[in-house]
Order: sequence, then structure tokens, then C-alpha cells
Amino acid sequence: MMLTAQPPRTNLALMLPQWIIEKKRDGGELSNEEIRSFVGGYSRGEIPDYQMAALAMAIYFRGMTGAEVGFFTGAMMRSGGVVDTSGIDTPTVDKHSTGGVGDKVSLILAPLAACCGVAVPMISGRGLGITGGTLDKLESIRGYRTDLSIDEFLEVIRECGCSIIGQTSDLAPADKKLYALRDVTGTVPSIPLISASIMSKKLAEGAAGLVLDVKYGRGAFMKTREEARDLAQTMVEIGRRAGRGMRALITDMNQPLGRAAGNAVEVTEVIETLRGNGPPDLVELTLELTAHMLMLGGTAAGRDAALPRLRACLESGEALDRFRRMVELHGGDTRVVDDPTQLPAATRARNVLSPGDGYVSAVDAGLIGRACLVLGAGRTRTEDGVDHAAGITGLVKVGERMRRGEVLAALHSNRVEAIAEAEALTAQAFSFAEDKPARAPLIAEVIS
Amino acid sequence: MMLTAQPPRTNLALMLPQWIIEKKRDGGELSNEEIRSFVGGYSRGEIPDYQMAALAMAIYFRGMTGAEVGFFTGAMMRSGGVVDTSGIDTPTVDKHSTGGVGDKVSLILAPLAACCGVAVPMISGRGLGITGGTLDKLESIRGYRTDLSIDEFLEVIRECGCSIIGQTSDLAPADKKLYALRDVTGTVPSIPLISASIMSKKLAEGAAGLVLDVKYGRGAFMKTREEARDLAQTMVEIGRRAGRGMRALITDMNQPLGRAAGNAVEVTEVIETLRGNGPPDLVELTLELTAHMLMLGGTAAGRDAALPRLRACLESGEALDRFRRMVELHGGDTRVVDDPTQLPAATRARNVLSPGDGYVSAVDAGLIGRACLVLGAGRTRTEDGVDHAAGITGLVKVGERMRRGEVLAALHSNRVEAIAEAEALTAQAFSFAEDKPARAPLIAEVIS
Repeated sequence: MMLTAQPPRTNLALMLPQWIIEKKRDGGELSNEEIRSFVGGYSRGEIPDYQMAALAMAIYFRGMTGAEVGFFTGAMMRSGGVVDTSGIDTPTVDKHSTGGVGDKVSLILAPLAACCGVAVPMISGRGLGITGGTLDKLESIRGYRTDLSIDEFLEVIRECGCSIIGQTSDLAPADKKLYALRDVTGTVPSIPLISASIMSKKLAEGAAGLVLDVKYGRGAFMKTREEARDLAQTMVEIGRRAGRGMRALITDMNQPLGRAAGNAVEVTEVIETLRGNGPPDLVELTLELTAHMLMLGGTAAGRDAALPRLRACLESGEALDRFRRMVELHGGDTRVVDDPTQLPAATRARNVLSPGDGYVSAVDAGLIGRACLVLGAGRTRTEDGVDHAAGITGLVKVGERMRRGEVLAALHSNRVEAIAEAEALTAQAFSFAEDKPARAPLIAEVIS
Repeated sequence: MMLTAQPPRTNLALMLPQWIIEKKRDGGELSNEEIRSFVGGYSRGEIPDYQMAALAMAIYFRGMTGAEVGFFTGAMMRSGGVVDTSGIDTPTVDKHSTGGVGDKVSLILAPLAACCGVAVPMISGRGLGITGGTLDKLESIRGYRTDLSIDEFLEVIRECGCSIIGQTSDLAPADKKLYALRDVTGTVPSIPLISASIMSKKLAEGAAGLVLDVKYGRGAFMKTREEARDLAQTMVEIGRRAGRGMRALITDMNQPLGRAAGNAVEVTEVIETLRGNGPPDLVELTLELTAHMLMLGGTAAGRDAALPRLRACLESGEALDRFRRMVELHGGDTRVVDDPTQLPAATRARNVLSPGDGYVSAVDAGLIGRACLVLGAGRTRTEDGVDHAAGITGLVKVGERMRRGEVLAALHSNRVEAIAEAEALTAQAFSFAEDKPARAPLIAEVIS
């Protein structure tokens, strides 16, 4: 039972943080001034963690309107610096994925978009839990620096049209503080708070356009398509309100993307794809996302115009050259690009075999992610390192027909003791059926 | 939209505070072990304020079952010492009121119950906001010490059957810490949290029985009778589970109780009542509450047996003698008891006059409370002092017929500048009607 609400307090000269918490608790809509005052106070350390924790829990239960979450995101963004992309004379568009198993799209998409006249200023995160991080994958290339300064970052973009680096401490520091707090106060799974966290960092990158890959399913944070749609719509509205060109693709993350999951093993698959030999699902998703970047950047009139150009860039090796150049400008060892066997390799390998005959009806990306974690490819705590050599290759896809004893996947690890557990998880991930399963669309919908 | 719940985590060896927060957030029922671990950790400073703030907000939205709130109260009670009343050889019963304007019942009821063989170990609070505090009233008697040690407290009870003191720092310290946190995190108006806060302190007093006066209306924290009933039922259940005899009266606090509101002015009304000249509503409520104390203590078989004995104690002066003895044992100036004009008096007085003819149909206790605050009789911050002389007397009651220019109330203050504002608030508190209004029952229901 909720108690009778007290009349709202309105003394603006003295806007106590608890009044703002109470207003949200009672289902009210916070004003820009209230949100700025709260987030600004929190960012400056004037409002303590316990008041932000109470507000975050009230937001968890009450949600936020489009206007509120826009103001909240803006206030978080302004807690730090904003990248000035005005010195880049091509359109700037970034892509962000909510994370999935085997998602190495950024490494292909950034050079591909750059080839087609769209500059990609990408500031990325590390993986946590089952999802791999783009930075971890790039760092399996010897020498690749993800810690460029913002000036160096802009210089690389001017030079080759794209750069992928890690988050600098100056970017949306309030988000970093709030994220750590949400993690220990049960306030992570809130659409407005997730949206504001992602978008405050993305808006601070200064790109004029943003394409979102919002994933749902067993290997994604969002378990259902409806939740993913809700998150996508919220983020698109935030970006719109901030004057950015926005597009979101809702995509299926029930099975891993491509055939490899890990770090170095994914870079190998990236290079194969840039050579025109990528797995169909990875190629399809990468081309669709990049096509929307071109449309937002105004370098392609529509999807039909964009897709052939993108395919041509892959087949001609132009995108591969661009990738090699980006690696070089980041201090990475470019020999890897021409000979992926130079990448870190694990000491142990084991094949997981099919227990019978039939069509693969599901490959649980959540279990494959956990198997990667056990093998050493992921981290459970932010401060942990990852083993770049660990991972899974040759993953069989849904719809493929297998016979007993054929290889479903190959595990790679330096942890002898981990192989058996990872093998069990991987075997458990596969389901089989007598009949060929209907194909679920990889791209469920586009929100624009 | 709520996100799909993740499976609950069950590693009991490592029970992270955030898992407990998440369980409550998702509507789960916390176990005794989880609650003990959280409240104990908070009390010892191992669980930070921000996690307790998040849990409190989750409790605000999700509520608590009877078992949970019982465990929560017990854990808060055990954060400090518990009074050992085993040395008192008469039944021990206390009374607690949720607070209202003009509520001076405790000062009459404690000596009255003591006269009838029930010992009253009462540990009381100070007033905050519109409601006056029993301690503030007692301290308007020169010399009265409310800061007795627990040993002195028990000695006074053995001597005269009752004692009223202030909360010691050792009593339910977790509640004190949590109350301060709730005050600044928008988590005050939660029935389980209010109940646990009150009952953790009351159970720590060690009385075998407890009668609750749960007030609703304009001058009470609970605005509706339904809310008051919910609070009363929750507290009665907590007490039951802890093995105490429990009774709750749901009472009307739309108009002030009696004809005086303040501190010294209320002590004067207490003494008049102990002399057998009290206003009918104050006498009625006091006798009913005390009758239930006698029933719980087993010194009266029922209400019909209790009421005549109580009336006799008032009329014989026995209760007044007991009050005088209590004041004396607390170091107070007993001359006040025989001559209330010795109490602090204000330098300024002003009568509030009736603006027309008619029956008084309402006296808004909330506005009268605010007028008292303006006059100096209450406090807005815990650390403020009160002016014992300030207050309102001669309050006309609902149902009385007034003519234009007759006195509705008399204001008393030492703040010259406050009189006009208090006068406006007091005048605003009175409503009039052509016809005599139907009388609302003072005691709406009894929960046992």
C-alpha cells in the first residue's frame, strides 16, 4: 500500500535532493533544472552516493519520460569533456552495439565505412561477463594502442577515416561513477539508466550520426525483442533530442555471431571477412549496419545504393587496406593482417563432437559466452585481464545438418583445467531437431 | 517497462548485499538470514549507506510481508541493548502514539495506569514538524530530567510505577542511523519501515505489553483511516511475533486533541485533567487507552471493569499524586503541579476571533500545528530547541456554536513578528456551517 502523497514542494531557491527523489518516487516528471541540479551535484561530489542510489531505485520503478531521460543523458555528458570533431571534413557516424557473443562487427565496419566517405570516431569499452569487448580483441594485435589521447584519436581519423580507442577518464565521468554505484545497488536493469549511460558516452564522442545494434536473446543483456525495442526507441529519442542522426537495428543474439568467439580468434575471422570470406550472418549484419551509417552520413541515398558499394569495398581489398592502415596508425603489428597465424595461439585445443545425427536447432549464445569465460577469453571483474589466445572457433550454425562424431566447435585455451568444463558448456549449448528449423531473421526490425 | 528478471543468486556463503537488494526489488521475500546479514552489516558500518538507501527504496515500492518486517524489526532492535524489566514485579505495559497536535495523553496515562497496578516504562521522542514531543512538554517543568540512565529509569519505575525519559544512544542505534538516512532519501513514508522503526525502539524497552494510538487525519502523519489501519495492523503483528501483548486504537486527528497545543500550555491542561477537569475528548481517549493497558497487564478483566476504576483515580486525586511523585523523582519542580502558573509564560498573547455566526464544522489540526511551529512551540530541525512558553489555548471544538467576535483560540508567543502569521493560520483552520455537524467518533476502531 502506498501512502497518501504529500503536496509537492516548490522552493526552487533551495532545491533539496530529497525533494527530487520524492518527486520521482511519486511518479512525477523531473524538470531539466531538477535533473541538472541532481546530476551536477552528484558529479561534483556534493550529492552523496546514498541519494543517487535512492533516485536510481525510484527511476527503476517509475521509469522516465523521453524528455527526462534526454535531460539526464545531457547532464551526464556535460559532466566531462566532449570531443570536438569539427576539424574532420567528412561526415562523422559511429556505431554502438549493446553486446553479444562473437560480435566483432566494429572491426570490419569502421574501415568499411571509412572507405565510403564516412569518418568513424569510435570510443569503445572492454568486455564484462559473457560479452567480449572490442578493445580486448584489438589488443590481441601486438602493439595496438587503445589509449590514444583525443588529439591522437582525431589525427588517426583524419589520416585513415576511422579510429577505435578506449574510454578516456574525461569522458562522461558521472556515468562512470553512477555505473559503479548501480552495479552494487541493484539498479542496473533499468531502460532509462542503461540508455543514459550508453548515450552520454556516445554523444560525448561528437559524431553527427549514430547507428545502434540493439541485441536480444540468450547471448544478450536484453532477453526479449520487446525489451530490446524499448531500449532502442529510448536511445534513438535521446539522440534525436540532442540533434544527432539516429538509426537502430534490433538483432537476434540467440546464437553467436559468425563462427568464432574470443579475442585473437575473432580478429582472424575479421581478417577473413575483410578478404571477402566471412560467414554469411556476420557479413549480412556488418553490411546492413554500415549501409545505415552511409545513409546517415549522406554518402548513400538508400540501402540499395549502399550495399553494392560496400560489397565492392570488401571484395576489392580496399577495406582490408584501410584496416591495415588503422592498425599501423595505432602502433599495431601489421604483419598480423596478412598472416593471422602471427596472432597469439593457445597451447591446448579440443573439439566438441556431435552426440548424434540431426539439424542444429539452437546454439545457446549465453552458454557459449560462459564457455569462453571459462577458457579465459573474458573477465568477471573489471580489473581482470583476458587471455587473448583463448576462445572457440568453427562454431556450427543453426540449420546445419550434423552427423554423430562431427565437430560442433573447437575450444582453445591455455588453462588445462578449464577445458572439460568449457566442453560441457559448449556441448550443452547445442540443440538438435529431426527437421530443418525455420530461419529466424537476423535483423528483426529497423527503428528510425 | 520492467526488464526480464535474471535467475536469483543462491550462494549463501557469499551473500552480497546487492543480491538482497535485487531480490526485494524483484518482489521476493527476504529470509531472516538475509535481513539479519543486511541490517547487521549496516549497523556495523560494513554495508554502506548507499546500499541501505537502495534497499529502503525497494521496500518502499515492494513492501514487506509480516515475517519480513518482524525479522527486520528484530534485527534493528538487536543492534543495541534491550532494557531488562525483570526486576519490576508488576506487569509492564507501554503506550505509543504516532503523533498528533495537542496529544498530551502520555503525561496523564502513565501515572493513571501506575495507580491501577500497571508499570509504565516509557521511552519517548522529541517533536519534529507539526507534532509536539512528550519530552519537550515534560521539560517545560523546571528541573525535570529526561536523560536518566536505564538504571535510574528502572529505579523510578520501581518507586512510583512509571517513568518517561528520552531515547538513550544505546537503544536500537541502527534505527537512528536508518531514520536519518530515510529522511534524506525519500524513504520515510513506507508502512513497513515506519513500523520497524517504531517497534524496534518499543520492543527494546522490554515492556510485556504495548497499546498503540495510531492517528489519522489532517494533524497526523497518516492522512487516511485506511493507512492508519494498515500501519496499526503491521505493528500489532510485529509485537505479536515478538511475544508481546498488543492492542491498537485507530483515532481521529483531524482536529487538535483537547483545547491546548504547545508545551507548557499542554502541561497545564494535563494537570487540569488529573484534577478531574479535563476536556471530554482528551479524557475519553486517555481512559480508553489506559483501559486497554490494564487489560493487557491483566489488572482489569475488561473495559467495563477498567473505566470506573480509572475515573475514580482521576477524581480522587490519586493520579495527580502519582504524577507529582514522578516529577519529583525526575528532579522536577513539584510546585508547578499545584500551581501551573509557575510554568513558563509567553510575553505576547492574541485572541483569534470568530468571523461570523455558526457551528464550527472543522478545526484543521495540520494548520494549528503549523501555527504552533510559527509561534515557536515546535522545531523544523532535530537540533533546534523549542520555546516552552509558546502555544495555543482555549481552542474551540468541532460542534460548538460561535457568534461573530467570540474567541476561537488564544495565541501565546515570545516572537512578536510571528503573531500575525500564526493568527492567519489559526483563523484559516476553522470552518463553519449553518447546521450542527455530525460527530465523527474519536476512536474509529480497535485492533487486537
